[in-house]
Amino acid sequence: MAMAMASLSLHFSSTNPLILHRLRTQPHKPFSIKSQAAPVLSQDELKNLAADKAVDSVKSGMILGLGTGSTAAFVVDKLGLLLSIGQLSNIIGIPTSKRTQEQAASLNIPLSTLDLHPHIDLAIDGADEVDPNLDLVKGRGGALLREKMVEAASSSFIVVADDSKLVSGLGGSGLAMPVEVVQFCWKYNLVRLQGLFKELGCEAKLRLDANEKPYVTDNGNYIVDLYFQNPIKDGFGAGKEISALEGVVEHGLFLGMATSVIIAGKNGVEIMTK
Amino acid sequence: MAMAMASLSLHFSSTNPLILHRLRTQPHKPFSIKSQAAPVLSQDELKNLAADKAVDSVKSGMILGLGTGSTAAFVVDKLGLLLSIGQLSNIIGIPTSKRTQEQAASLNIPLSTLDLHPHIDLAIDGADEVDPNLDLVKGRGGALLREKMVEAASSSFIVVADDSKLVSGLGGSGLAMPVEVVQFCWKYNLVRLQGLFKELGCEAKLRLDANEKPYVTDNGNYIVDLYFQNPIKDGFGAGKEISALEGVVEHGLFLGMATSVIIAGKNGVEIMTK
Repeated sequence: MAMAMASLSLHFSSTNPLILHRLRTQPHKPFSIKSQAAPVLSQDELKNLAADKAVDSVKSGMILGLGTGSTAAFVVDKLGLLLSIGQLSNIIGIPTSKRTQEQAASLNIPLSTLDLHPHIDLAIDGADEVDPNLDLVKGRGGALLREKMVEAASSSFIVVADDSKLVSGLGGSGLAMPVEVVQFCWKYNLVRLQGLFKELGCEAKLRLDANEKPYVTDNGNYIVDLYFQNPIKDGFGAGKEISALEGVVEHGLFLGMATSVIIAGKNGVEIMTK
Repeated sequence: MAMAMASLSLHFSSTNPLILHRLRTQPHKPFSIKSQAAPVLSQDELKNLAADKAVDSVKSGMILGLGTGSTAAFVVDKLGLLLSIGQLSNIIGIPTSKRTQEQAASLNIPLSTLDLHPHIDLAIDGADEVDPNLDLVKGRGGALLREKMVEAASSSFIVVADDSKLVSGLGGSGLAMPVEVVQFCWKYNLVRLQGLFKELGCEAKLRLDANEKPYVTDNGNYIVDLYFQNPIKDGFGAGKEISALEGVVEHGLFLGMATSVIIAGKNGVEIMTK
């Protein structure tokens, strides 16, 4: 199924006239995606379209950061396909989660770590929210720490997403903004995190797994999910306040990190850059 | 043995004329401990003397942060003694490590956590280095994160140490300044930490346990120990730079946290406050 969709989107990226490129020179300018007659695509097809466009930037010989999540999984699938048919070679992937590591290994993508390859050419990953400044919320998939380590070590960082991820302000989707905390006294930190943002109507919840047990990250920590009634006004300020709490390991605000964002919408693909 | 020493130091604190109190109003003034004829005390006796003086500040009914390490262990022993003979009552202790939790439980000190008691009246703990501003290096015992969480939640924080811990600048002892990092790509972070301070002749080493395996903290992380040839000039700046590295969980610089430091030297006890 994934391979079939890969073919579909390869077709899209090479021939579809609806792909729009817009270089963003005014970061605060509101989004606009031109409306044209187009086939109705599913969310998976949109993610696949964005993934396909991102993989166009991959060159043979690159050290690549491999993201985590449903959109990033399309990227990894496509890299495996291009390696297998010889269109790419000498790629080394640095996975951002155990899940991605397993997926990439199953596709015979050569893998390494930041320990051995501390400088990465290009990282490609999904995002949960994208704001007009290309700042992101990430980590609903639970891999925020490793994603941030890998993506901060990358010369370029391309974000792939469908247009449902666009927000006017971070936290504005009403969905989770995750914070990874040590297990020790997590309730104490949950209360402190909620208290930081009480003016934004913030509710903090411990993330649970399918068995209603606390979700444990690849690093053995818990995740406190923050839900905002109103978007965060000052992302950098919020990030600093969260990081200053002892016991917070990392947060899901990815600020000033993305070099471009590829958004697939009903009408095609838009590339946002700073 | 601990009980015998407890008696010795109780005697010392109540009658020894060599106990010096000096309120520090000029934080940058160099240390001076007046020289007087005095018995030669062992390092353990000095630690015990400081612990005894600190426990003088404990009142019945307090929520107490219980530190970790050889000097803090004397404090916990003493609290257990005073509770057992009824000189103190209604104490609740918040331990900063599994080790301290076990010690306190064995002495029948009632225990709780930050989750249930987020506001602590007084924390007492040792330190590895104390500078003239009452800034500290802590964590050679491996409990830096929990110590920092508990001590940051305390209205007062008394540090107890023998005079071998005094330094003119943090890192100046030439011994370890610990940084707790996630296990994932610890080498990458070790190299980055060493790189931050290369001008200070910094060497970074992964802490090993007695079996030459990586030392694992109570939170499941590793510790990178930083050794400085020259002291850190700007502690707050250094702390920020370390914390900004993704994968760093906490560092051993305790800045602006101590409200007083009790130093036991060959000639008695000195209390330093801001």
